[in-house]
Amino acid sequence: MKKRKWAVGVDVGGTNIKCGLVDAQGRVVRSLVLPTKRFGRPAAFVEGIGRAVQQLAASAGLSVAHLSGIGIGVPGLVDARRGVVHILTNVPGWHEVPLAHRLRARLHRPVFVDNDVNLVALGEWRWGAGRGATSLVCLTLGTGVGGGLVFHGALYRGASGAAGEIGHTVLDPEGPRCACGARGCLEAHVGTAAIVRMARQAGVAHRGRLTPEWLAWMARRGDRRARAVWRQLGRRLGRGLAGIVNLLNPDRVVIGGGVANAWALFAPSLRRAIRADAMEIPGRAVRVFRAQLGDQAGVIGAAVLVWNATGGRR
Amino acid sequence: MKKRKWAVGVDVGGTNIKCGLVDAQGRVVRSLVLPTKRFGRPAAFVEGIGRAVQQLAASAGLSVAHLSGIGIGVPGLVDARRGVVHILTNVPGWHEVPLAHRLRARLHRPVFVDNDVNLVALGEWRWGAGRGATSLVCLTLGTGVGGGLVFHGALYRGASGAAGEIGHTVLDPEGPRCACGARGCLEAHVGTAAIVRMARQAGVAHRGRLTPEWLAWMARRGDRRARAVWRQLGRRLGRGLAGIVNLLNPDRVVIGGGVANAWALFAPSLRRAIRADAMEIPGRAVRVFRAQLGDQAGVIGAAVLVWNATGGRR
Repeated sequence: MKKRKWAVGVDVGGTNIKCGLVDAQGRVVRSLVLPTKRFGRPAAFVEGIGRAVQQLAASAGLSVAHLSGIGIGVPGLVDARRGVVHILTNVPGWHEVPLAHRLRARLHRPVFVDNDVNLVALGEWRWGAGRGATSLVCLTLGTGVGGGLVFHGALYRGASGAAGEIGHTVLDPEGPRCACGARGCLEAHVGTAAIVRMARQAGVAHRGRLTPEWLAWMARRGDRRARAVWRQLGRRLGRGLAGIVNLLNPDRVVIGGGVANAWALFAPSLRRAIRADAMEIPGRAVRVFRAQLGDQAGVIGAAVLVWNATGGRR
Repeated sequence: MKKRKWAVGVDVGGTNIKCGLVDAQGRVVRSLVLPTKRFGRPAAFVEGIGRAVQQLAASAGLSVAHLSGIGIGVPGLVDARRGVVHILTNVPGWHEVPLAHRLRARLHRPVFVDNDVNLVALGEWRWGAGRGATSLVCLTLGTGVGGGLVFHGALYRGASGAAGEIGHTVLDPEGPRCACGARGCLEAHVGTAAIVRMARQAGVAHRGRLTPEWLAWMARRGDRRARAVWRQLGRRLGRGLAGIVNLLNPDRVVIGGGVANAWALFAPSLRRAIRADAMEIPGRAVRVFRAQLGDQAGVIGAAVLVWNATGGRR
């Protein structure tokens, strides 16, 4: 039988559902986007994705039968083994949905489901900044701080599929209250809200809304206060990561998400803080890079999930 | 060929080297102890352990050829794949010693080497309080706070064999200076020195040296200040573990080491703190137990290391 060289990756976000036909080199050769608002509910989702998969295949002169399978990353808690979505964050109507089963019944190809940040980590491990790492810690910086762990080429999901919540490791138990209910989580220290708070406290000039994008623009223009805020962010993040580096002794940390667009502004102080705070051996073993796959990471990672499950690790 | 049912486990401590003949049910059926002072240097160690292994086998009517192999846990950094000891903590003369190779040349049986706390974790996973766990976090409480991680039945060692340093995850970056150089590590908050400091601040009465043993004795006698110190310890430890529970989503946390003798005095506040501070899903998935194998855990874990490597996971 001819070896199947393509997979479709799907990345479900709060606004858009990105679908991509991915080739065996991890390139997105065709893509299309559905609005989450219209296709967010389970029945519409299965129908919409089913049609999107057929369209993507057809547009490349393929049929669905040519696909290794379909991988789907969702922002929520997933039983990856059974392909069941327990619950989605910010998308209503999802509760114990056997998504893999339902989509497989529609498309007659293997379907795999996982948490979206897990798939970013898997994508970066296979085709991005995490290539060759035996122990990868992947972090996404934005409103929330997400994470994924890839150990020896496989996602580490923990006992109930919830592992990787780097944003909710504790940096300071007396620190600011976090959205999760605890105090002083990394997310409460380096998430978008914390960055804006730091910028305000530093007195960074702004018209309209103060955002990380604005702060990066100001810093690139040479504004000293803005530059100091990014250095402060790097230090905080580095301190938080130092403990994780001691615990997991990863050889690679990869950082993505919207805030990573300001990479050059905070990476030097981030790396310095890890070197200063981590123990000698794990501190020397780790290299810290910016994610490489940008907003395609989730789609590519979803395709890697398919290949890992169906054809070995390719 | 007759299946080999025995292994010798060796646990190297600062004072004693414990050697035990372990049967297939994880029981130490014969044991002997060598003083680290006399057998601590590499050449004397290989000679001493070589003889101890022969004696242990003979005392049970076996020859060395009946052993599956020899497992050795050392307090230091190890390349477990090659069986090389990079460096030992508090035992001089060890630097890049190919221990497995040298002892194999002496005994003509397979030899495996790993970090001592890793082997405690492995022993507890196979025969102790960690049985059946898919993701085990094991912690030893004492002067130092050590840790080991067992994921899906295998030790997680990280990129350079240094993983599991739970004592050096950061609980409070502005907190007390830790022996590792960083600030506010878990070890600096819950190690023996921190317990004694808490007891002193609480004004616990004492004659002679104030130790965790004394503090536990006072607490058991009903001393309210002493009891409060143990509750404080439980809270601190629980807060520190909550972040690790969020990150790794383990189904089991097992706590050993000398300070765990006071288990009943701090376990309730420890469990409460984890429930309060961890996220809902991982917080519900985890169960926290006292280690079961006591000071035999290292010897038993060393035998498990042998069986995992030579005969599958038994």
